[in-house]
Amino acid sequence: MKPLRLGIAGLGTVGVGVVKIIQQHAEVLAARSGGRAIEITAVSARDAGKDRGVDISAYAWVDNAADLAARDDVDVVVELIGGSEGLALTLVKAALESGKHVVTANKALLAHHGHKLASIAESKGVSLNYEAAVAGGIPVIKSIREAFAGNQVNAVYGILNGTCNYMLTAMRETGKPFDEILKEAQEAGYAEADPTFDVDGIDAGHKLALLSSIAFGVKPDFTNLDITGIRAVTATDIKNAGDLGYRIKLLGIAKRIDDKILQVMEPCLVPLSNPMGVIEDVYNALYVDCDAVETTLMTGKGAGQGPTASAVMSDVVDIARGFVVPTFGVPAAELKTAEWMDLNEMESRYYLRLMVTDKAGVIADVSAILKQLNISIDDLVQHAQGSDEAVAVVLTTDTVKRGDMMDAVEMFRNLTAVVEEPCLMRIEELE
Amino acid sequence: MKPLRLGIAGLGTVGVGVVKIIQQHAEVLAARSGGRAIEITAVSARDAGKDRGVDISAYAWVDNAADLAARDDVDVVVELIGGSEGLALTLVKAALESGKHVVTANKALLAHHGHKLASIAESKGVSLNYEAAVAGGIPVIKSIREAFAGNQVNAVYGILNGTCNYMLTAMRETGKPFDEILKEAQEAGYAEADPTFDVDGIDAGHKLALLSSIAFGVKPDFTNLDITGIRAVTATDIKNAGDLGYRIKLLGIAKRIDDKILQVMEPCLVPLSNPMGVIEDVYNALYVDCDAVETTLMTGKGAGQGPTASAVMSDVVDIARGFVVPTFGVPAAELKTAEWMDLNEMESRYYLRLMVTDKAGVIADVSAILKQLNISIDDLVQHAQGSDEAVAVVLTTDTVKRGDMMDAVEMFRNLTAVVEEPCLMRIEELE
Repeated sequence: MKPLRLGIAGLGTVGVGVVKIIQQHAEVLAARSGGRAIEITAVSARDAGKDRGVDISAYAWVDNAADLAARDDVDVVVELIGGSEGLALTLVKAALESGKHVVTANKALLAHHGHKLASIAESKGVSLNYEAAVAGGIPVIKSIREAFAGNQVNAVYGILNGTCNYMLTAMRETGKPFDEILKEAQEAGYAEADPTFDVDGIDAGHKLALLSSIAFGVKPDFTNLDITGIRAVTATDIKNAGDLGYRIKLLGIAKRIDDKILQVMEPCLVPLSNPMGVIEDVYNALYVDCDAVETTLMTGKGAGQGPTASAVMSDVVDIARGFVVPTFGVPAAELKTAEWMDLNEMESRYYLRLMVTDKAGVIADVSAILKQLNISIDDLVQHAQGSDEAVAVVLTTDTVKRGDMMDAVEMFRNLTAVVEEPCLMRIEELE
Repeated sequence: MKPLRLGIAGLGTVGVGVVKIIQQHAEVLAARSGGRAIEITAVSARDAGKDRGVDISAYAWVDNAADLAARDDVDVVVELIGGSEGLALTLVKAALESGKHVVTANKALLAHHGHKLASIAESKGVSLNYEAAVAGGIPVIKSIREAFAGNQVNAVYGILNGTCNYMLTAMRETGKPFDEILKEAQEAGYAEADPTFDVDGIDAGHKLALLSSIAFGVKPDFTNLDITGIRAVTATDIKNAGDLGYRIKLLGIAKRIDDKILQVMEPCLVPLSNPMGVIEDVYNALYVDCDAVETTLMTGKGAGQGPTASAVMSDVVDIARGFVVPTFGVPAAELKTAEWMDLNEMESRYYLRLMVTDKAGVIADVSAILKQLNISIDDLVQHAQGSDEAVAVVLTTDTVKRGDMMDAVEMFRNLTAVVEEPCLMRIEELE
């Protein structure tokens, strides 16, 4: 049987991980691929001379990664360059057009150009696989596209960014503020020098857009996703949440409600009695709710050399076995344009913290505003938090519409005794 | 494209679930199968006249399920009869030999005859799929065989029997004894009239034998599995475990240690701070530890109509797509005969409860025995449990070899002040 020949674009952490797996597990990979050997024939990266701790001398060096698309000795292009435009887009498009399979870890590329690229892949009868793009070591793409193929998916939700979860865990354990923990995470290599993509929820948002697409058979649509990152989360709120029996997690939710899809990414309070509540550090976790299989939860490391390279190899072995699954589960031409639900209609309980100068007076005002909007207070917690100038009023609400809650917050902002931006977070009971 | 035609043997809960999915989701199943329709052509069960709440009038009725193997209008036999011998074995063997794919939920059949049946399937180039046999809705077979194909698996462990987990949860919540909870579980349909397969760990043991096989590339070997069920677990021990920060779970473990494999199924103490500790009721949960992907955890319902039928359909859709994976991940001829580790060499911490008549004297005797065997006491807990005649001494040990701990228990049994069979359980930190 002819070997399956890979051209790898990008030899960073993940690329080197892929090289290691292929070199170390050649025999078992062939056995698992129906006897077909998996080989690397060509590699491309920015710096040819760099020592990467693996021997790549047997592979052809390609200066311009885009040239991998045209090579006769490459069956599969493994794109590990990153970025939604530029070289990654050029390479992936050219590779698919020349009839090569593509395996990528690039969530941004697929969140922005997934539908178009899937159409090209299909017209050429090749795979465009991206298990490594979402939740690293967790086989969620394979599970939704294949294991749950007999189901209607009702919802997908979870923790999709390891950097944010690591930081929220560290803030809880140390009580240190966001800025300080970010600095430590950057020094430890858990956060990038420019942390925007992670802490502002963009990276997790790209992943959620892809999950939405395969779960509900709609075109990936990143632009219609409402995203709030974790910059505004304070150690105080994490502590308060803990006292109430919750942990704060950056939670992405994609949910089918009648004919519409609700999609939102924001920090939420998650109960400690739920397995999701005890998912800490760099771990990701995903619930998939389906009509037949009901609720499943998968957790694992969402990033790092081993987990991401393992996901890349899962896609490669599938190609070696001759398995081709449509990129988003069903043929690209059948993907619908999603109708998104108005988030103001979303019903949840809420956590609210107000910093105020006149506690007694404010509680009366806040109660009046909530009453006016028909919002019930579930729990009013007295806290000694704050300085001489301001003290905290912390409360949780019963289930309300998000729109009403937002109206209430707008009115709180206008109270003269409220001296900071109110902190509002959804409580997600995950029941 | 020609439709994929199924012959279903067994129309119990799961069989009816499969019929429902195929009738309700025909369109999306075809889209996910590359445009190939999935149809039922023939069914077989014990009672032709029974009302099952689904319309099966369009399917040929077959009195003897074994006849499905010879039908020209059947491409895939779905075996939902159960049992390791008899009709199920006859049907599956004949179906494979006549070149039909087989999808089964029958863990007993595969744990006992898996290697032989896998060899037949391979020689005919057909699939023998069994996602539904292990942990129902959790796609663990697909994950190990496909998603983690680039990994060496180091260990698989978890909660594999929903009935036991339901009963342990109910005992903890109500404080009621095993016998009473078993009766309630039987009345509620969560336990069989003959509960042996569930509560004695045999069902979970069959599943563990299959997981061991695909994880480590060895022939399934149920006979070399050490199994202890949950009959001896008391509400008292569950309470004591809770006070120490643990829950008691029937835990199956298969672990590679050097060239040997450790395999054991027994109730263990699992920390509440670990997601596994909060997996309750009929949920199953499985950790898979690999060299690249590291630790992943999957949870979901391990039984019931929807989850099990969903797993059956996952296998069916793979066949419709033309995917054939060797039954145990690698070709049957390459499966090794496992070398099993001597359990006496296994190192763990332990929980011990002794019912004694003379507390002070016994603590001195117990301490002396443990000292003699070089076993350190981690925690000695005073409990008011017991009657006038006997009180409880509860302790946890540091890490010891199982063999030494068993020697200690044998010596405790011989102490005249020890008036009941000592209760010993492993503490599994899951770190």
